[in-house]
Amino acid sequence: MKGLYFPQLHKYELRNVEKPCLLKDTDVIVKITLTTICGSDLHLIHGMIPTTPGYVLGHEYVGIVEQTGSAVKNFKPGDRVIGPPSPFCGTCENCIDGDFSHCINGGIHGTGIEMGNLPGTHAEYIRVPFADTCLVHVPDILEDEQVIFISDILSTGYTAVVRGKVNPGDSVVVFGAGPVGLCAVVAAKLFNPLQIIVVGRKDKFRMDMAAKLGATHILSSIEDDVLEEIMKLTNGRGADVAIDASGSESAIQQAVRCVKINGNVSLVGITGTDITLPLSQIFMRNVNINMGLAHEGYMQRLINLVLSGHIDLSSLITHRMRLDDVVEAVELFEKRSENVVKVVIKP
Amino acid sequence: MKGLYFPQLHKYELRNVEKPCLLKDTDVIVKITLTTICGSDLHLIHGMIPTTPGYVLGHEYVGIVEQTGSAVKNFKPGDRVIGPPSPFCGTCENCIDGDFSHCINGGIHGTGIEMGNLPGTHAEYIRVPFADTCLVHVPDILEDEQVIFISDILSTGYTAVVRGKVNPGDSVVVFGAGPVGLCAVVAAKLFNPLQIIVVGRKDKFRMDMAAKLGATHILSSIEDDVLEEIMKLTNGRGADVAIDASGSESAIQQAVRCVKINGNVSLVGITGTDITLPLSQIFMRNVNINMGLAHEGYMQRLINLVLSGHIDLSSLITHRMRLDDVVEAVELFEKRSENVVKVVIKP
Amino acid sequence: MKGLYFPQLHKYELRNVEKPCLLKDTDVIVKITLTTICGSDLHLIHGMIPTTPGYVLGHEYVGIVEQTGSAVKNFKPGDRVIGPPSPFCGTCENCIDGDFSHCINGGIHGTGIEMGNLPGTHAEYIRVPFADTCLVHVPDILEDEQVIFISDILSTGYTAVVRGKVNPGDSVVVFGAGPVGLCAVVAAKLFNPLQIIVVGRKDKFRMDMAAKLGATHILSSIEDDVLEEIMKLTNGRGADVAIDASGSESAIQQAVRCVKINGNVSLVGITGTDITLPLSQIFMRNVNINMGLAHEGYMQRLINLVLSGHIDLSSLITHRMRLDDVVEAVELFEKRSENVVKVVIKP
Amino acid sequence: MKGLYFPQLHKYELRNVEKPCLLKDTDVIVKITLTTICGSDLHLIHGMIPTTPGYVLGHEYVGIVEQTGSAVKNFKPGDRVIGPPSPFCGTCENCIDGDFSHCINGGIHGTGIEMGNLPGTHAEYIRVPFADTCLVHVPDILEDEQVIFISDILSTGYTAVVRGKVNPGDSVVVFGAGPVGLCAVVAAKLFNPLQIIVVGRKDKFRMDMAAKLGATHILSSIEDDVLEEIMKLTNGRGADVAIDASGSESAIQQAVRCVKINGNVSLVGITGTDITLPLSQIFMRNVNINMGLAHEGYMQRLINLVLSGHIDLSSLITHRMRLDDVVEAVELFEKRSENVVKVVIKP
Repeated sequence: MKGLYFPQLHKYELRNVEKPCLLKDTDVIVKITLTTICGSDLHLIHGMIPTTPGYVLGHEYVGIVEQTGSAVKNFKPGDRVIGPPSPFCGTCENCIDGDFSHCINGGIHGTGIEMGNLPGTHAEYIRVPFADTCLVHVPDILEDEQVIFISDILSTGYTAVVRGKVNPGDSVVVFGAGPVGLCAVVAAKLFNPLQIIVVGRKDKFRMDMAAKLGATHILSSIEDDVLEEIMKLTNGRGADVAIDASGSESAIQQAVRCVKINGNVSLVGITGTDITLPLSQIFMRNVNINMGLAHEGYMQRLINLVLSGHIDLSSLITHRMRLDDVVEAVELFEKRSENVVKVVIKP
Repeated sequence: MKGLYFPQLHKYELRNVEKPCLLKDTDVIVKITLTTICGSDLHLIHGMIPTTPGYVLGHEYVGIVEQTGSAVKNFKPGDRVIGPPSPFCGTCENCIDGDFSHCINGGIHGTGIEMGNLPGTHAEYIRVPFADTCLVHVPDILEDEQVIFISDILSTGYTAVVRGKVNPGDSVVVFGAGPVGLCAVVAAKLFNPLQIIVVGRKDKFRMDMAAKLGATHILSSIEDDVLEEIMKLTNGRGADVAIDASGSESAIQQAVRCVKINGNVSLVGITGTDITLPLSQIFMRNVNINMGLAHEGYMQRLINLVLSGHIDLSSLITHRMRLDDVVEAVELFEKRSENVVKVVIKP
Repeated sequence: MKGLYFPQLHKYELRNVEKPCLLKDTDVIVKITLTTICGSDLHLIHGMIPTTPGYVLGHEYVGIVEQTGSAVKNFKPGDRVIGPPSPFCGTCENCIDGDFSHCINGGIHGTGIEMGNLPGTHAEYIRVPFADTCLVHVPDILEDEQVIFISDILSTGYTAVVRGKVNPGDSVVVFGAGPVGLCAVVAAKLFNPLQIIVVGRKDKFRMDMAAKLGATHILSSIEDDVLEEIMKLTNGRGADVAIDASGSESAIQQAVRCVKINGNVSLVGITGTDITLPLSQIFMRNVNINMGLAHEGYMQRLINLVLSGHIDLSSLITHRMRLDDVVEAVELFEKRSENVVKVVIKP
Repeated sequence: MKGLYFPQLHKYELRNVEKPCLLKDTDVIVKITLTTICGSDLHLIHGMIPTTPGYVLGHEYVGIVEQTGSAVKNFKPGDRVIGPPSPFCGTCENCIDGDFSHCINGGIHGTGIEMGNLPGTHAEYIRVPFADTCLVHVPDILEDEQVIFISDILSTGYTAVVRGKVNPGDSVVVFGAGPVGLCAVVAAKLFNPLQIIVVGRKDKFRMDMAAKLGATHILSSIEDDVLEEIMKLTNGRGADVAIDASGSESAIQQAVRCVKINGNVSLVGITGTDITLPLSQIFMRNVNINMGLAHEGYMQRLINLVLSGHIDLSSLITHRMRLDDVVEAVELFEKRSENVVKVVIKP
């Protein structure tokens, strides 16, 4: 089958690779019907996330079950499914604690040997372990494009909002207007905050998109005095919740400083470096900081909310391409030209 | 009356000062029967906490109500009381939110004009505002020395433990074996953790005290590979909760790295500087970080626990002196000679 | 001044009564600009809530500050305000615990000597104690009718939703389509649940109103097999949250049985009797039950949400009358004729 | 092998039964080394819990793994283990939500076809499904008698205390001085409450045991005015937390009435009937009520606490018998003669 192979740092190519097959009786083989390029793909390609190349990339997908292991009970060939970037067993110590993204027996699709060597989704087929535990059915009425973002970037945005404890009437700041930041805007909006202030590089296209998705105010990380503006917008009190979806040091420093006394800061933007925390400025303000990957237990809830029309992320898809053109797709995504937000790929 | 006056940076002297008098009908005048030197006194004296000198120092006390404003209902002359370093009104926006240490109308005793200009406790008398809201009765059966630490350092230690969500069977690490660190040990012990690992400079006197108060393991911040030892003690899993009572950058860096996946870090040691947070090492571990001054709502609970014998902090008192000798007391405390932990002062 | 006087059980009349005056320096006198009849007024009139008659009724209002006690800092004559049915001091043990509705020094407007003997709001003026603590400013841009319900019935509905822990995507059942039930619908909608199922007597007028305010399904407590219908609507799983705003035994029994395993039940409908709890049917389902009066700490948040357009309760007002006609207003409200939901009264 | 067979209501006998064998590759066969009679065994025998007889009884055990299914990774023959009454898969919807006692694929040992038909533990061997998910290793240093109560009655007591949110300095009331009530006392003591008030029938033997395990006050459900005494002991405020381990209606009524405003009530005593809840007396007090079976996620934590000496339940064992005498053991337990608390059985 064809797959986007990552042979060595900074390289990627469409290549014929071996089709994955069932290894355990809890596995399924899924035929990919839609996959999408993610910023993490680039992080891997360029070594910002330490990795050993030699695998197919990709970790977000919609697909159809093609074959099931003998112990699989909840899925049968023909079922449409989505699944998390990091499948989880449900039975290890961390899963028992409800922390599925730290499953001891899992891994992350398309990220190499350091993270479990699970097949990448930029391909025609993948093997999904622990299918009964971590796959979720896609209702017939929903198109692939309506659910492609649920398992990764929307789960991340929703996780940020839940960990940040957003409430109706709150002021929420989201740093970063990339796909995760935009999903955080959509997730925050579910709780009817008064303000959703998005801080980004303020290219007009993304900012318009942020506004359409629910942002009430847009600040430029480059031109605006972000802290001063947030304090003005919140009458000097600070935001209730700040979410960083950028991973940038200056954004994180602003995030911890822009929240009110006892405010919450959720970090979901992956950063590869240390950061200087302005502790002397925030200690007396009792700031709470949490961080980490998405909780994967929200997929069913999010599907329901898409189904009911409460969530619609289809506008994030700016480009639709074929697997045959996946190399171009990655290049396009990397250059950020042509107002690209998310590129989806049909095999 | 006599008071420990702070006339200019790096200076302090016993001086005749004006006895405070009632300013509002919710005030009381308290005759101090015991006060104690705190690390923050030194921070002020040496300008590590920005301040405008020209006031009497001190913010921890036990005393007897001498005079009450006309609106005071819960206290009468002769009542023995303790009160928080930062009296709170109970009626401002922050107090209504239960955040008494950020009371808009309050201040901190003995810290100067920046923080409300409330009288310092290293003196014969103080004025306490909002008496009904923030003072707590001391039962006759308890000695001054049994309750002197409740309002400040014990409340701080207990706050750290509550914010860190310590549970029976947990592994808890406390960085810093000064008075606040030792109080955190005592507070943690109330929840019956399996391990209380204290990390300090490991002078024998304080470490013996830590062990007597409940520490199960003692590590040297200088000689031990602290992270490695904690990982060994927790079978590679990391501690459930880390509390920093030191304010040192290296301790905070170890604190956020020594906790388990989803672990909690409580910062209660005041630091005057920024710190470098090893975010790339902790992001994937979903560490939660909280910080700030003590919650002042635990005083009655803590008095009850002293009364019942569940808490005994009397061993922290290593030196007893008179107000006439308060200058020597501060010098002794500053030099940390003679195995000083806490010096109490009787006017 | 004129006031709706309650001289003895089952009687009420418009009467000249003494205008209240300042009693303490934390009091204000408020000139009522809008008041509204509440079901509790009827409960008092007919003795369903034990009371000693001989007072002016009413506890929901909007008004203008006319006179302020000497200690009042946040309000001045001319300020438009709303305030809670039960003013609270902020400084007693319960207020310090954040439980304002159990303030030891407070009381409830218009409910007689058993509950603090505070002036009733169906009059031209009231005295409000603890003004700085419990009054909230009304922005000029908002009409009286937009904010009249915030302090009592909307706070109650919002409290029920918060205590019930409603989340986006949840199924919520509200028992009772009276004013409080309708407010619970509005409050639940702020969290974007999938379903808001209202169970009521299903008179067409109220059910249309429920639907307009956000109910997705309407069940008749008389004609429908409520439990069966809820199980059908939730695919046999049960609702996430049930709110009882009716106080009826059969509704409460259905509420605790209709929720999912580990579901939450919030009781906010006042009931005067004991109820039989089907414990054998719910014990194994781990149902959580909470109850009680509204938390009064949400008023500012709710005003903000009205101001931003997230909440609009003006459709609840079915009748507008003058204080001169307040006796007719109560009669109208009691008979529930003419599709009455809420009657507002202008003095 | 031999097993305590339950052929029809009110009958039980030692009988030769078939030794269980592996059915799935996630099963293990455990050789029982200790089992213990539980009140629920009697409930089944006498039909108070609806059941279809025809199985071996028993659900609490310590044992040695004899044989493992091919997918079992964490256990090997020879390992000493304990396991929950209700094994859980970790992968179904309820397990993913962390609610293991409602596992869709599980069941309860020794309770018949209605609850999964899992082998009873009053026998020489059992089959345990989902071994990797739900078994816990027993350290060599611990005797069977030290860990036999962890999975059922101690987990139940600990669950009650956690759900009731017991804190240091609290007043806790435990209704029922049977094995579960005594475990709740031990679990509550881990949080250093000021008072643990046990309400029971007050036979001297059990009350002495309660006192030894941590009860600070003993009340007789028959002779004392329980509510009045609790109010006296708590200075009229009410208890912080009440735990019902009796399942009796009068106890539950007292439990909900004896707690303070905003107090918590945990029901863990199984009751077969409806109860009359004095709602009119508790509504205004904002009582919170939770209920249900033990959370099975605490076993490792509790083993650690036994290992460290923080928990010692060995005094609960009043009788030690052989499987050959299990019929007498049940009779003894049922009659409650000879000061029986817990009878342990060695096969």
